[in-house]
Parts: sequence; C-alpha cells; structure tokens
Amino acid sequence: MARRPVFFVSDSTGITAETVGRSLLTQFSGLEFEERTLRYVNSSRRAQEARAAIAAAGKASGLRPLVFATLVDPALRQQVAAADCLFLDVMSSFLEPLARELGVPPQPAVGQTHGMAAAAYERRMEAVNFALHNDDGAGTRSYDQADVILVGVSRSGKTPTCLYLALHYGVFAANYPLVEEDLERLALPPPLVPHRRCLFGLTLSAERLHRLREARQPGSCYASLRQCRYELQQAEALYRAAGIDHLDVTGLSVEEIATRIMAMTGLDPAPAAPAGDPVPG
Amino acid sequence: MARRPVFFVSDSTGITAETVGRSLLTQFSGLEFEERTLRYVNSSRRAQEARAAIAAAGKASGLRPLVFATLVDPALRQQVAAADCLFLDVMSSFLEPLARELGVPPQPAVGQTHGMAAAAYERRMEAVNFALHNDDGAGTRSYDQADVILVGVSRSGKTPTCLYLALHYGVFAANYPLVEEDLERLALPPPLVPHRRCLFGLTLSAERLHRLREARQPGSCYASLRQCRYELQQAEALYRAAGIDHLDVTGLSVEEIATRIMAMTGLDPAPAAPAGDPVPG
Repeated sequence: MARRPVFFVSDSTGITAETVGRSLLTQFSGLEFEERTLRYVNSSRRAQEARAAIAAAGKASGLRPLVFATLVDPALRQQVAAADCLFLDVMSSFLEPLARELGVPPQPAVGQTHGMAAAAYERRMEAVNFALHNDDGAGTRSYDQADVILVGVSRSGKTPTCLYLALHYGVFAANYPLVEEDLERLALPPPLVPHRRCLFGLTLSAERLHRLREARQPGSCYASLRQCRYELQQAEALYRAAGIDHLDVTGLSVEEIATRIMAMTGLDPAPAAPAGDPVPG
Repeated sequence: MARRPVFFVSDSTGITAETVGRSLLTQFSGLEFEERTLRYVNSSRRAQEARAAIAAAGKASGLRPLVFATLVDPALRQQVAAADCLFLDVMSSFLEPLARELGVPPQPAVGQTHGMAAAAYERRMEAVNFALHNDDGAGTRSYDQADVILVGVSRSGKTPTCLYLALHYGVFAANYPLVEEDLERLALPPPLVPHRRCLFGLTLSAERLHRLREARQPGSCYASLRQCRYELQQAEALYRAAGIDHLDVTGLSVEEIATRIMAMTGLDPAPAAPAGDPVPG
C-alpha cells in the first residue's frame, strides 16, 4: 500500500509544523505516512519548489498529500496551497482571536518563531556544558549547582535525558551511574548522599535494557537478561530504601522522560492554586 | 505593567502546546507574557488544578490568561476551558478535516503525541553517543560514519548543535575545533582532509564570541575582542579557501542553527521537483 505523503512546510525551522503535524497524525494510528520537511521556504522560488514537490509526491503515490504549514507571508502560503493537497495552516487560524484578545494586530515576523534572547541561549549553553562536565559521575564537585541528578544503571537513558533537559529547558542536570558495588550494598554512593533531595532515579524493563546493552556489547555478561534483571531489581530497591522518586522509562521518548521528570520534581512549577483560592470540587 | 499570563496545558509532554503557543506569541512582539506549562493534565483532578491555577493567575495579574491547550479528552478540555481565559485548542480544529481526508475517525490516544518507535529511539541514542565520542576533535577514527562534521573556533556553538542534531533528528554529527595552528596556516587540520565533503563551518560576530568567552575566562587573551576578531577572520578565510559551506550563527537559537545546517547540507532532502515535473513559473 502506498504511504500518504505528508509535508511540513515552514518559512523558518519547521519545528512547529512538525510538532503539530506529528501530534495530529498519532491520532490516526494504523495509517502509514511518508513525511518530509521543507524548511526556510521564505521566497517565491522556494514556495514554487515546495508546491512542485507536493504535487509530484501526490502524483507518485496516487494519494493527496497532507500539508502542515507555518507560512507567515500570505502570498507564499497561497502559492504552496495551490498544489492539490489538504493544506492545514497551523498558525493563522489562531492569530485572529489572539489579536482580538490582545488588542493589537499581529506583526508578521517571518522566521522569528524560534528566535530567542541571547540570555536564554547562554543559559542553555551553560546547562549543556554542565551536563557534559557532570556526565556519568565524571564530576561531583559542582553538584551544588545541579537542579537534578539522575541516577540509574548503565544504559538507562541518563545522558540523553540530561542533554535534553539542558538544551530545551536550561535545566542543570547531572547524572551518576549506579555500579555493582552500590547495587550490592543497597546504599547510595557517598558523593550522592549530601544531594539526596536532588536525586531522581530511572528504571526500565529488563528486556528493554537487555536489548540496549546487547547493541553495545553483544553476548556479554553485562548485557545478559539475568544481569539486567538483577541490576534493575537492586536499583529499584535502592530507590525505595533511599526515598528517591523514580520513573520507568520503558517505551518513553526522550521528550517524555524529560518532561515527566520536570513535572514530577517540580522543576516545572506545580499547577496548584495559591492559598486562599481553593480548588473547586 | 503586569505581564499577561500564558498557560500551555497538555495531557502529555506539553511540547506541542509550547511550540505552537510560543510561535504565535512571537507574532505579537513588544508585549510581555508570563509563561507556565502544565504537563500531564490527564485526570479530572489535574484538570481542576489547572483551571484553578489559570483563574488565580488571571485574578493576580488583572489580565485574562491565554491558554494554549492540547487535551485530547473533551471532558478535561471542557473543565480547563471553564476558567475565565482565552482558550485556544491547538489540535482539535484540525482533526475534523484530517479525518474527512483520511476517511477514518481519529482514535483518541492520550499522551501518545510524542510516542516513538523503539528503533527511532535507539537511532537517536546512538547519534547522541556518536556526538559525545566525537566532540571537540576527541575521536576522528569514526568520521566515516559522520553525516556532518562541524568546524569552528572555540565557543562557536559546535557542541550544542551536534547534540541537538543527534537528539532530534538522529543525525551523526561530529565536531572539530579550529585551533591557532590551523588558523595561522589557513589549512584544514589533517584529520579533516579526507572528509571535506562532510565539513560545515560555523562563524559568528566577534562581539558575540567575545561575550561568550568572557563568561568562561574573563579578562583572558583568549576572550579579548582582538583575539576573537583574528580567529574569526582566519576561520572564514579558511572556509572560503577550502570551499566549506558555513553559517553565521549570531543571534540564532540552537534549533535554528541545527535546522539551517540540515537544509543547507541536504541532510533534509531538497524540495526540488523530480525530473520531468518542471517547476511552474
């Protein structure tokens, strides 16, 4: 069966179109799509190229393409939408109600959708450096600066999660591996003891860990299902004994792991009503 | 002046609501907003907490909150929307036209918006490992596997860009620093010569580099404006001499740097029409 072509078309990074489009497509599970992103479509020439690519994909597949677009310039939008496709403009339908609410007209700012202040950029870069210097237990002296310290057995996803938290949210995230000795003793490694309130544990299914380790060291004792089971069972016992919040990351994407940790640890402010404003029943 | 409260409310990661909402708000530059994300609002209790938090923020600021929501369950959506706010549902208005086009009803899949296949997860994790092992010229033996090798002077943004490309797109990105000797000789470092077609250069304004380096090593020769100017001028001359595509990253976010590199290098397929299907005038 031919897969239906899907295009994310943007005058900027394409991230908004991709994010919305993919979220919507997951609501139609079972169907297959062929996705393609056309970024920086910010000239008439690029818009015509996009239109031609959409038309060609429709012809080749025999299925009308779906187009998720974030094109601020109405002329470019029109050019792309002229292709035979289902054209969904994921931005402009919200601009009118927003403008009415805010009492000012929108000022078309092509390609500014992901612009960010230098200060925010620098904060995120500092956080990335922190994650790199505090990866895998490499440095423990700067744990005082950590917003969160992830713990878990080898290959439980600590490093990518720390990097995601740093890159996206400017969160200072360190990580520390639980090794054989910690797991046998069922005790926190000494460098972590003073930072107990910052610790967060990762766990996952033994089958998944086995598969991840097999990819790294096939046939090793380290990767064996038996060893994975033992380590995870001990790690979870340690989390419970030490009172460490933890999360089973099996089947979760890095985005999900990172945002769940933020929600669970209060790195996101909790959605509780302030005192004096009781939650309605 | 009070800042208008903005809420991103999601039954999942919140990333879609944040992405769309922030893109829209950049179209109203000059106004100030107080942003807050409420993630994993997936129960009636959490929805009521969200509603109370929105109401409280409106009361405290005296400004009606803007709410960007991705709540698949209509009951939860209704509960949150009952707060006095401008409620923008960034998903459901697109579901109906999509369902009509696809000929199947949407299947509400709460919290699946960012689910991803294990294979895609593993590809991204491999890419993160590759980026870490090939950071800052640390390893050059696996450059054959690289999709792209970023070059640039110290603090030009190579590492975060590589990590972003890996985490988001599963791109195998290495990076190699241009040091004094390379810049003086105006010649590619020997380990890079066989990989010329994979190289991509970063540059930025001397003022910005100076500021970034000052944050790291204040008052040093390394951070001086004069040194920054010299290094960047030599690096750009080297890019031109060696025929290396490059990008000025001044004022760009990591997202923008990463996606522009993808668009410029063809890591994204180019939006050209296939042969035989000429671009319309």
